[in-house]
Amino acid sequence: MPRLPLYALLCLLLATMTPAHADEGMWTFENPPAQALAERYRFSVTPAWLEHLRLAAVNFSGASASFVSPQGLLLTNHHVGFACIEKLSKAGSDFVMNGFLARSREQELPCPDTEIKVLQSSEDVSAKVFAAVQPTASDEVANTQRKTAIAGIEQACAKTSKLRCEVVSLYHGALYHLYRYKVWHDVRLVFAPEKQIAFFGGDPDNFVFPRYDLDFAIFRAYQNGQPVKPASYLHWSREGIQEHELVFAAGHPYSTDRLDTVIQLESLRDLHYPLRIASAQRQRAVLTAFAARSPESARRAENNLFGVENRIKALQGEYKALNDGKLMRKKTEEETALRKSYRELAQAGDGDPWRQIAVATSQLDARARELWAVTYGRHTLFSLAGQIVELAHERLLPEGERLEDYREAAIASLLPRLKSNAPIYKDLEIARLAGQWQEAADLLGRDHPFVRRVLGDATPLAAATALIEASKIDRAEQRVRLIEGGVAAVEASTDPLIVLARDIYPMRRALQKFAEIEGETPIKRAAEIIGRARYRAYGDRLAPDATATLRLTFGSVSGYDADGILTPWKTNFLGLQARAAAFDERPPFDLPPRWTQGLRRLAPATPLDFVSTLDIIGGNSGSPVVNRQGEWVGLIFDQNLEGLGNRFVYSDVKARAVAVDARAIMEALVKVYGADDLARELRGE
Amino acid sequence: MPRLPLYALLCLLLATMTPAHADEGMWTFENPPAQALAERYRFSVTPAWLEHLRLAAVNFSGASASFVSPQGLLLTNHHVGFACIEKLSKAGSDFVMNGFLARSREQELPCPDTEIKVLQSSEDVSAKVFAAVQPTASDEVANTQRKTAIAGIEQACAKTSKLRCEVVSLYHGALYHLYRYKVWHDVRLVFAPEKQIAFFGGDPDNFVFPRYDLDFAIFRAYQNGQPVKPASYLHWSREGIQEHELVFAAGHPYSTDRLDTVIQLESLRDLHYPLRIASAQRQRAVLTAFAARSPESARRAENNLFGVENRIKALQGEYKALNDGKLMRKKTEEETALRKSYRELAQAGDGDPWRQIAVATSQLDARARELWAVTYGRHTLFSLAGQIVELAHERLLPEGERLEDYREAAIASLLPRLKSNAPIYKDLEIARLAGQWQEAADLLGRDHPFVRRVLGDATPLAAATALIEASKIDRAEQRVRLIEGGVAAVEASTDPLIVLARDIYPMRRALQKFAEIEGETPIKRAAEIIGRARYRAYGDRLAPDATATLRLTFGSVSGYDADGILTPWKTNFLGLQARAAAFDERPPFDLPPRWTQGLRRLAPATPLDFVSTLDIIGGNSGSPVVNRQGEWVGLIFDQNLEGLGNRFVYSDVKARAVAVDARAIMEALVKVYGADDLARELRGE
Repeated sequence: MPRLPLYALLCLLLATMTPAHADEGMWTFENPPAQALAERYRFSVTPAWLEHLRLAAVNFSGASASFVSPQGLLLTNHHVGFACIEKLSKAGSDFVMNGFLARSREQELPCPDTEIKVLQSSEDVSAKVFAAVQPTASDEVANTQRKTAIAGIEQACAKTSKLRCEVVSLYHGALYHLYRYKVWHDVRLVFAPEKQIAFFGGDPDNFVFPRYDLDFAIFRAYQNGQPVKPASYLHWSREGIQEHELVFAAGHPYSTDRLDTVIQLESLRDLHYPLRIASAQRQRAVLTAFAARSPESARRAENNLFGVENRIKALQGEYKALNDGKLMRKKTEEETALRKSYRELAQAGDGDPWRQIAVATSQLDARARELWAVTYGRHTLFSLAGQIVELAHERLLPEGERLEDYREAAIASLLPRLKSNAPIYKDLEIARLAGQWQEAADLLGRDHPFVRRVLGDATPLAAATALIEASKIDRAEQRVRLIEGGVAAVEASTDPLIVLARDIYPMRRALQKFAEIEGETPIKRAAEIIGRARYRAYGDRLAPDATATLRLTFGSVSGYDADGILTPWKTNFLGLQARAAAFDERPPFDLPPRWTQGLRRLAPATPLDFVSTLDIIGGNSGSPVVNRQGEWVGLIFDQNLEGLGNRFVYSDVKARAVAVDARAIMEALVKVYGADDLARELRGE
Repeated sequence: MPRLPLYALLCLLLATMTPAHADEGMWTFENPPAQALAERYRFSVTPAWLEHLRLAAVNFSGASASFVSPQGLLLTNHHVGFACIEKLSKAGSDFVMNGFLARSREQELPCPDTEIKVLQSSEDVSAKVFAAVQPTASDEVANTQRKTAIAGIEQACAKTSKLRCEVVSLYHGALYHLYRYKVWHDVRLVFAPEKQIAFFGGDPDNFVFPRYDLDFAIFRAYQNGQPVKPASYLHWSREGIQEHELVFAAGHPYSTDRLDTVIQLESLRDLHYPLRIASAQRQRAVLTAFAARSPESARRAENNLFGVENRIKALQGEYKALNDGKLMRKKTEEETALRKSYRELAQAGDGDPWRQIAVATSQLDARARELWAVTYGRHTLFSLAGQIVELAHERLLPEGERLEDYREAAIASLLPRLKSNAPIYKDLEIARLAGQWQEAADLLGRDHPFVRRVLGDATPLAAATALIEASKIDRAEQRVRLIEGGVAAVEASTDPLIVLARDIYPMRRALQKFAEIEGETPIKRAAEIIGRARYRAYGDRLAPDATATLRLTFGSVSGYDADGILTPWKTNFLGLQARAAAFDERPPFDLPPRWTQGLRRLAPATPLDFVSTLDIIGGNSGSPVVNRQGEWVGLIFDQNLEGLGNRFVYSDVKARAVAVDARAIMEALVKVYGADDLARELRGE
């Protein structure tokens, strides 16, 4: 091919690669899809419209929510608020099973450890970050330089603004934006339906449509003992949505892999997904066995079990998408076109970033099992021990040398979790930790130094039992003492979990540093080069991969053809009853007692759940769905199975976002729960 | 491989090929699956139980039905009885739209041309047929010898028994059985629901489950003006079925291709299915355009349109199954094992039947387009002309030389159809024939002799219009005159359709004889050899392919996992309302006026449709579903999409037969239609 001018090459590139597919894109509020909205929907997005939505959109412990009243009412999913609802429940007053309604402000119950934050403003700091990294620096030096620069920006911002400041990398490092958040920690439970109606159909119906779930819960944000008066909140739509209507969601999608290279996707497909799925299946087996011990055990395991079942279904759906030959062919074609254009434009001396990613990926893959298994456990009491030890040591280092999780900006979020008063059940901890150690022994062998240190000659169960029974860090005040005592307290501690975490820390740190220097940093540098090439080609018309930060997505309310099965855009209360009856109301298709009666009072054809082409992924749970007027019409809570491939490629053929309809929420609050005051507050009366 | 004794080879063969899979098999009543029923379900099938079901099972114009009262009431599907219901309807009294209920015997309406028959007895005549064919005869001679022998057996039987006698080839010619039928032609409509409730969801929901159709209609058989008193009839089950219960169906599956060779399946996949699907899609376009002309046009086209839409979905489902690599791999493995065993056992001089089938298949495939397009049209007025011409000529030939459709035994069924008084709409005939001739011109080119003869220089529409408008054979008495006048009357006729049919007859006959001699006969002879090899290996433990004759099938009532969507074994009236509401009652999800009111009176959780692992295919429509006691609990009316692969390989994973629940039928008759007398007769009160 003869050398063509830049413009011609870009045109060629644009023709071979469709940049934004239909309603695709998890857009930053800094760069809304104004052109697509104008062309596809004749919707003109204004700064005021955007600001109204952005200031009402809430990050709720990592997932999504929104302010829906001037008195700080927060709307989110039941499954997002579940950790709080479960922690507030006790054997005698089980809000998970029976639901909860505060009939006055005094009855609203503070969540043990929930953090909410709202994005206040943002700033492009790319130039500052790029300027800090010498192009000729080694990966290790470059890594330190970038981290130092980012930490410096974050700290300077925090000092002047008194806000939480975080630098976000977009387009795999093509851009860096500084985000400033307002943060609250006093969040109280106002209303929760019975879990059985919020999660009707349980794991079998998870990621399925038609769906019949009232997956919502209502909280209130407080500050200094008073309800928060948010800068912006969403009004409830009196009309509700129609089929084919334009809708938006604002939320916090965790991560997507749409800009990954083919080599990275193959590595996910061939190594990481099988590893993760097998691990999740082990965890499910452990939790199922634990839950079978007694009703109280079942209650204690419930949140973990929901999480792992949800993860298994999501991983399997994504794994299926990765194994779809068409997807890989599309990715390969796109990459071939981009590489060709990159080579044409590259300067002498530019490397081949795809090759660099391939090399680094194989480095990481070679030690993937160790990286997976050498841990303090996943979300266990032992992980709290590990974090206490790491925090004490990492804090002493300059920001550029710390492990990623211990940047000052990150510590601010970590501390409330470490100090939380939420109940910890030692029997459950023993079962889970034993399961994870069994996995480590199977993956690494009994002779691996990590396995030898944690197990010695004991069985995983015996080792876990001995450690956890003797430990006292299940009590929050013990953890607070250790955190406040710093390295001295940690080094002096004789708590067996702290002692073990101390021993493992060097091994774990070396592994993480290996991953950072040999894998993540070269990948990040190469991805930046590709990201910039792509950004040069598409600019703002391509959305960045998700980064757990606030995103705007748009789409239309519409049903679909599920391989020959015509699937309507909405379900209704009749369908809920029909599905319960079709399974003779056997769990998980049973109805709570209040509903057996209450259903008669509901308008039977009220839309219950609906689907749209909104581009979402995990983390969007609890996102408000709003109409052109910015009023809330629904509440995102799931994707359908076909939607799970959205992690890699967006599609609007069968992939759908699933939401609770605002009308069903109002109908249920008034007619089933008699929550008239709450309904009035939501309606703005 | 060393030469092994026969026994060892058979064992090897049996080990590599699973003969009967789970609930697989469309079994003849002569050879019921007694062992499988005993082992899988602890059910002991007795001769009396079989005879009771066999004598109540009715062949209803090719599809299935059953006697359900001592006074000759017949239960079948609405879509099976539709041709009659439609023909009895007029613009003013539209029973298709409004339903029909006879409140007395006098109000029962005779169907224009419906034939029912009941299998009385059967006899193995394999030895007689085999003895008549010289092993060394050429294909042409062998064909004549076999046909002569079969016609002789049929005629001798008819003479002595006064019954309809037909010889059926089983296991692709490994066995020949003589079937004796009692036949009735006076069938009267007693009850039909509105088509909209019988076929709720229309084409989109066809072959779909969950399903919400009341696809039933009730007729009564008469003889000499009096209700037939059947030798056996089925009692309505008071209890209804439960999940996991053993059920049976007795019906008339048209055809399956489970014993086809891989070459044959590949030919279907690569040539015949694409041809058939394209043809059906053309027909749908023609009928849709015709129906759009006026409401009356829509009414006239309705049955044809239902038929073609149904065919397209079925063909596409089967085509998808053929394109499933796993299916072909399984078939290839089975065939490789069978061929190996055959070679070991073959005598010197035995040919390779698989190769012979491959050669003959390629002969047929080479002229497949001509064989498809050179016709008198498919189910048109012109086909009646063609059949009249062929009948006159073929009847003069000895049985062994006739075209297959004009054996005496076949003529008995043909005559009532040729003489039928059912209305023929010339405008519809013109549209359909023009469409078929356009297809012929596209497939064969304007210069093909057939196309030249039917079209000349005219457009298909002009040619069809001229011929059909001038023809008088739309009147039954004209056809009767021609049939009774024989060759002389046919040769003397100046009716333009008869004249054209006369001209085409030699061309068409030569093609059919080519297919018979070069294709079908060598395939039949080779398939017989394979059939016998297979029969030697499996004997009765393998069911024969379907042959449109009476079969018994068994299975269990059970839901399934549809790629992650848990599908219950039953639906209910709530689900019907829910699906109607989910589509805002837009057609085809609207409810008839009587139902909008009537639904309130129904027990909402009454099972409406249910699925089971029963092994069925087209032609089973209208089959009664009976329980261990031989009582009817449901009525087969469909397969799910996943079930369409059953044509080639049975599966019980996701493939399901769909039936109307007997309880829904009774509930609707009493509470929606006020058909209390009819309900009492069905309940045996």
